[in-house]
Parts: sequence; C-alpha cells; structure tokens
Amino acid sequence: MPDLATALIAENFARDAGGVLHVGGLALTELTKEFGTPLFVYDAGTMRRTYRALREAVAGFAEVDFSVKANPNPAVIRVFGQEGAGAEIASGAEFDAALRAGVAAERILFAGPGKSAADLDRVIGGGIGEIHLENREEMARVAAAAERHGVTVRVALRINPGATAQGGAMRMGGKPSPFGFDEEEMEAAIDAVEAMPRLRLAGLHLFAGTQGLKAETLLGQWAYGLGLAARMAERIGRPLETIDLGGGLGIPYFSGDTALDLAAIRAGLPALIATLRANPLLAPARVVLEPGRYLAGPAGLYLARVLAVKESRGSRFVITDGGMHHHLAASGNLGQIVKRDFPLAAVVDAGSECTATAVVGPLCTPLDMLARAAPLPPLAEGDLVAVLQSGAYGLTASPTGFLSHPMPAELLVEGGEAELIRARGA
Amino acid sequence: MPDLATALIAENFARDAGGVLHVGGLALTELTKEFGTPLFVYDAGTMRRTYRALREAVAGFAEVDFSVKANPNPAVIRVFGQEGAGAEIASGAEFDAALRAGVAAERILFAGPGKSAADLDRVIGGGIGEIHLENREEMARVAAAAERHGVTVRVALRINPGATAQGGAMRMGGKPSPFGFDEEEMEAAIDAVEAMPRLRLAGLHLFAGTQGLKAETLLGQWAYGLGLAARMAERIGRPLETIDLGGGLGIPYFSGDTALDLAAIRAGLPALIATLRANPLLAPARVVLEPGRYLAGPAGLYLARVLAVKESRGSRFVITDGGMHHHLAASGNLGQIVKRDFPLAAVVDAGSECTATAVVGPLCTPLDMLARAAPLPPLAEGDLVAVLQSGAYGLTASPTGFLSHPMPAELLVEGGEAELIRARGA
Repeated sequence: MPDLATALIAENFARDAGGVLHVGGLALTELTKEFGTPLFVYDAGTMRRTYRALREAVAGFAEVDFSVKANPNPAVIRVFGQEGAGAEIASGAEFDAALRAGVAAERILFAGPGKSAADLDRVIGGGIGEIHLENREEMARVAAAAERHGVTVRVALRINPGATAQGGAMRMGGKPSPFGFDEEEMEAAIDAVEAMPRLRLAGLHLFAGTQGLKAETLLGQWAYGLGLAARMAERIGRPLETIDLGGGLGIPYFSGDTALDLAAIRAGLPALIATLRANPLLAPARVVLEPGRYLAGPAGLYLARVLAVKESRGSRFVITDGGMHHHLAASGNLGQIVKRDFPLAAVVDAGSECTATAVVGPLCTPLDMLARAAPLPPLAEGDLVAVLQSGAYGLTASPTGFLSHPMPAELLVEGGEAELIRARGA
Repeated sequence: MPDLATALIAENFARDAGGVLHVGGLALTELTKEFGTPLFVYDAGTMRRTYRALREAVAGFAEVDFSVKANPNPAVIRVFGQEGAGAEIASGAEFDAALRAGVAAERILFAGPGKSAADLDRVIGGGIGEIHLENREEMARVAAAAERHGVTVRVALRINPGATAQGGAMRMGGKPSPFGFDEEEMEAAIDAVEAMPRLRLAGLHLFAGTQGLKAETLLGQWAYGLGLAARMAERIGRPLETIDLGGGLGIPYFSGDTALDLAAIRAGLPALIATLRANPLLAPARVVLEPGRYLAGPAGLYLARVLAVKESRGSRFVITDGGMHHHLAASGNLGQIVKRDFPLAAVVDAGSECTATAVVGPLCTPLDMLARAAPLPPLAEGDLVAVLQSGAYGLTASPTGFLSHPMPAELLVEGGEAELIRARGA
C-alpha cells in the first residue's frame, strides 16, 4: 500500500518521467522559479472534481455550499460559486470576500457564536440570505439590526443536539457547548424568535462534528437533524425553508486515515429522502451541507524550499523557508492532541529510497515542525518539499505575523495557467 | 493565597474603589470606550520596571537585550531600547522594526535556524552587529552575502548542548535538534568559520530552554555556556567578544507557577563572574541575555467584550469578541500539552463571588477558548474581560486571518497617556 502522500498525488496530481510533481499540468519546479517560496498552490480542477462528486452523491437530498472560513481567498470561493455553491460565512469580511467572488448575497449564510453588531449591520445592509442565531443576546442583536435597516431578516436556529446518537456520532453534541441553543431549549428559543416581528424563522442549523470520515456517522447526524427539523416545523406550524446540516465532512490527513466513502453516503440517502418527502412541513425545505475542508483541502499544496539539512545525534532535520507561521495545522498546533505528520512529498522524487525525516521551519521555536518523521528521499539545500491537503485551514488559520516573515504567495492553477491570487508580502 | 490574576494585578496594575482595572493610571473601561475591543494594552511602566529589575539582578555579569519575536511592535521595542537594550531579531522585518524603534544596527543580533539569502542581504547591508550561525549551509550563505557586500561579518556559533546538565536543565539540549551545531561538532564548526575570510568568529550562542522559572536551572545553563565559551576561546586562541546565553526566562502563566526569583539569580552570579574573570580569554567578552517573554509578557493585557452569556447543561460560557485569532497561546494551541487557563480577570470586579467560567471567542470552532474554568464574577453582555500576561507571544503569534476578523488595536500606556501603536484593522 502506498503511503498517503503517494496515494493523494496519484489521485489529484501527477509526476512526470523525471519525478517532478505537477499540479493542473504545471511543474511545481517552474512555478516556484517564477513565484518563489514559500508558496500555496491550489488546483481548481481538483476543487471542481471534488465539488461535483459530492454534489452528485447527495443529489436529491441536499445542496452543497462552501464554508468560506476554510479558505477565504475570493479566487477559491469563486471556483465553488461557479459550480453553483452558496457560501457560509462567519464574519463581515468573509461576507465581502464571498460577494467579491461573485456569490449572490441571498446565497450567503452567516454562522458563528459571536456576531458583532457591526458585522450584522454589514451583512443585513448587504442583503444576506440567512443568519443563524446562536444565543439569546444574538437574537436580540439581529432583531435590533433588522429594525435599524427596516427589513425582515431570515434566520435559522443553531441547535446543540442533546443526544449522543449513532454511537458517538454527535461529537459536538450532548454536552455543554457555547454553540447554538441546547436542544432542550429549542421550543423556548423558537417561541422567542417567533415573537420578534423583524425575524422570520426559516429553519434549523445543526453542526454535530468535524472531520468526519465515516459515512454512517454523517448519515446518523443528518437523520438526527431531520428529526429536530420536524420538531421545529411542528412548533411553528408551517413548512421550514432551510435545513442546514452543517459541514463536518473530513479528509484523510494521517497515515491510516480512510477517505469518506461517497458511495456509502449515496446508499444511505434514500431513507433520509423518504423522511423528508413524507413530511409536508419538511418536503419544501432546502437542505444544505456546507463543507469547507472537504471541498478545498485536497486541492492545495504548501511548498517550501530547503535551506539546510542537518544530521543531529542520529536524526535528520531538513530546515526549510516554510513553517508553522504559514501552516499551523501541519505543525500539529491547531487542535491536535497527538501530533502526527501531514502527508509530505519531495517535489522532485526520482524514486530514491525514503528515510524518516524531520522537516522544520525557520522560526526560533521547537514548535516549528512541518513533519516529525516523514518518509522523504535525500534532500539538499535548494530542493523543494510539498505539504499536501493544505487547501483548507492553511494560510489563514496560521500565525502569519510570527517572526514577521512576509506573507507567502498564493496561486490558483486552472486550464494550464497559474493565477497569482495573493502577491507575496500582501 | 490570591489567585494568579489577582496577584499579577496587585503587582503591576490597580483597581479603583469601584473595582475598575487601571493600567498605568488609566481606566480600561475608558480606553475600550475610546479604542474599542478587542484590544491589546501594554504598560510601558511595567516593561521598564521589569527590565531594570533584571538588569540590576545580573549587573556585573550580563547585559540584557530584548528578543523582538516576543513582541515586534516598534513602540514596544523602543521602550526597551530606551532602557539600553539591544535587540535579538529573527527575520529581516524584525531587523527593520528594531531600526525603526531606534536600536542601533550594531546592537542587533540575528538568530534563527532558517535565515534566507534575502534576509541576510538586508541585515548585512544594514550593518547588523552579529549573526548567529546555525548550520553549515547558513555559514556558507552568510559568507557569500558578506562577499557580495564586500564586508567582514561578525558571527557567533549557536551550540546545541550535549549534556543534560543540572538535573534536566538543558531542556533543548542533549538530544537531536535542528538548532545550531551539536556540541560534539563544535570544534569542527569553529575551524570551518575560521577558514572563511569574510566571517569573524566573535563568540557563542547557547539557548538551552524556554520558560524557565527556576533560578538554579538558569544558573546551571549559564555555567554550562561559560564552559563551552572557554572551549571555543581556547580553540581560536583569542578572547571571545560575545557570549550570548539566550533568553528562556519564564513568567507565571498558570495557577501554581512561581515567578522567577531574581534574588536567587543574583546570589548565584558571583561564582559565574569569578569564572569569567579568571579566564583572560573570557574576561573581555560581553555576556548577553536576550529574553523576550520575561520582559514584555507581564506588561500586556488582551481585552475582549462579552457578546453573550450562555448556560449550557450546567456550564457557563461567556462568549466574547476576542479569541484565539488574537491570542493563540491563551487558547492553549501554542505548544501546550495540557491546556490550562491563562490568568483572566473581569475589568470591573466589585468583589462579587467568582464561579468557574468558560470564556470563548467568536470563531466557529471549539478550539476558540480563552479559558476553560476561570474564576470570574457574574458577567453580562457588554462587560469586559482581560487576559493577563499577554504582552509577549500574543497578537503576532496568533492566526489573525482566521475567520477574517479585523486586526485588533494595540495601545502603549505611559505617563498617563495611551498611544495607539496599531490602528484597528491595520
């Protein structure tokens, strides 16, 4: 069985006869010559393939929106917008990014537990499609902003599920949570929204987990969400307009991770579709999934150049110009309990034998490791390494100001062309 | 015994009769009215007191420089520069920040394991005082840059210590490391530098640990460094110019942490001073300590405003407009193995009973927690919370682009005035 990096390259990218890694038909050695390092490269073709495969898998059940927080570069949002995705945003600036990317305001949903009055004014003034309410204070703030703008705002209630359904599937549910209204309080929250003339309760938002790799877990969460939706519809006595089942679709990051099985998802959907159709209060609703990581993650690579190779007391360290300041997740400092290596590859790999190699960045801290023991061929100063699965929660989820290095450039590759979508240092 | 937050406030700040927290004589309630939230506030008086206390404790043994990576805001660097500190920098942009802050180029040291050719050109062109060499490739890059500029560059060798001296004191030493030359290779590295005409070997850089709270540990590391320095001086047959013993002086962050005992440091120094004086090859050297956290950390607070308070299944969550995007370390995601709470306080605390409170930020992720169970009085929408010990590794060590919220403002308080040293959104 090939290692994860090799498998991912075979799936979405390619190597030429000389072992040079290509993305969207372009040699990364050439791109780094032109654009320098460190560098993020996103492949629009992989994004489109991923989006279409998911859309087809859930066709007849749900639409697929893009969660902007995974990668807020407008050029990335635009790719998914062109495929038909709406956008889930979590701040006023993400709203602006989605608009700049060409997403229609009414196709944008605003989620997140701490929406400020300023951001609410911005999105309501901009005609946002729907705002998800997370708590009582926010409910009042949205109503006040709607009043200021003299409009009625379409809202959904985010529900923190109460049950541990489907054998631990509800990873964010069943326990105390800052997110949304506890399921036990749902009816009271519904009644409170219904009493506010400037708010129109359109539906429900359920987000029950993250990085889900098992189809049955996701199907269980969605089924649970439909049950909550039925309760909500019954309480308000009219059909729901939206049922947002969240994102949470995972991608393999670590050795041993298995990719989500879309065929298994597809196979489980007839039962859910039947549930929807059987209930006249649910049947008209638009069901939405809004993944970010799943759609953008596999399309992105982070490229760094080797500055030095050091053997120290039996270990090999490759020191690169890229590091945790651009890719906190790969360094293991974005929520990982156990630090495991992201899939890494040499950009030029002619098939030499690989040895376990630590890859570290240029920062003065032992936290700055891109890999602890990645299987890599021999590398020397000037060589390039690529961190795969870097299209989501990469650059913008990283402490880019740490040690004050310039921002890396970002490229979008499509149709055999590379577009500079963030200039170095910008 | 008061909790850590209360003790820290008593040490450096104050509350008025109404329980309002003041920094440098200014009420934080007034500062947040004028400058908004989230907000970093740094107290120049605390920085100066901290610097002077350390300088006096190590007087006759070492000078104290400031490690810019802890807080690269030029206004912060300027405060330490005014006190007489040189600057230790880790990138070209940090070099520029130190110059803007008024630090003379010859008082600047460049450390870090991945120095790029571009950064080397920048600092050598700017007349930097000294560059620390971390590996063979870097040695050649510095020599090449010196050649390009037609100058001789003063360098020091960073040594990765080989021994676990002083009962575990060498936390970064004795094991494989990407940093510096292994002690076993020191003589070979010395000979290599000595053979390069454009490099002038001035001394040694030892960094043996971080966040040291025990005087005897630090003293042991410094004694070990002097031993290495003697070996180096003997090898080159002339006196050393610099012995950089690194930073690594810690501050209390968590309940139970005890502040570094400067009197114990002072008490241990005569033996080290005697070692220096007894060796004519060491006596002329400038010994340098270059802490960052120790100098800047206690002077800074991060202020956030409460957006909502939610009781969920027996737990209380305070949701604020500040979070991990501005303060990754407080969220427990900057290298902590066990997530413990930074010291937090309510900005207005009239002495109400405290209960364990989770403080979370506005991001759509369960990672965005500023505290898990901080003892806080009852809080409501609009109230303010302060995270203490936030002057170092705060804003610039955080993923500020995550969810695209605007950059917070930064203030420097001195002489009863607040200076805006970073405008909101800049």
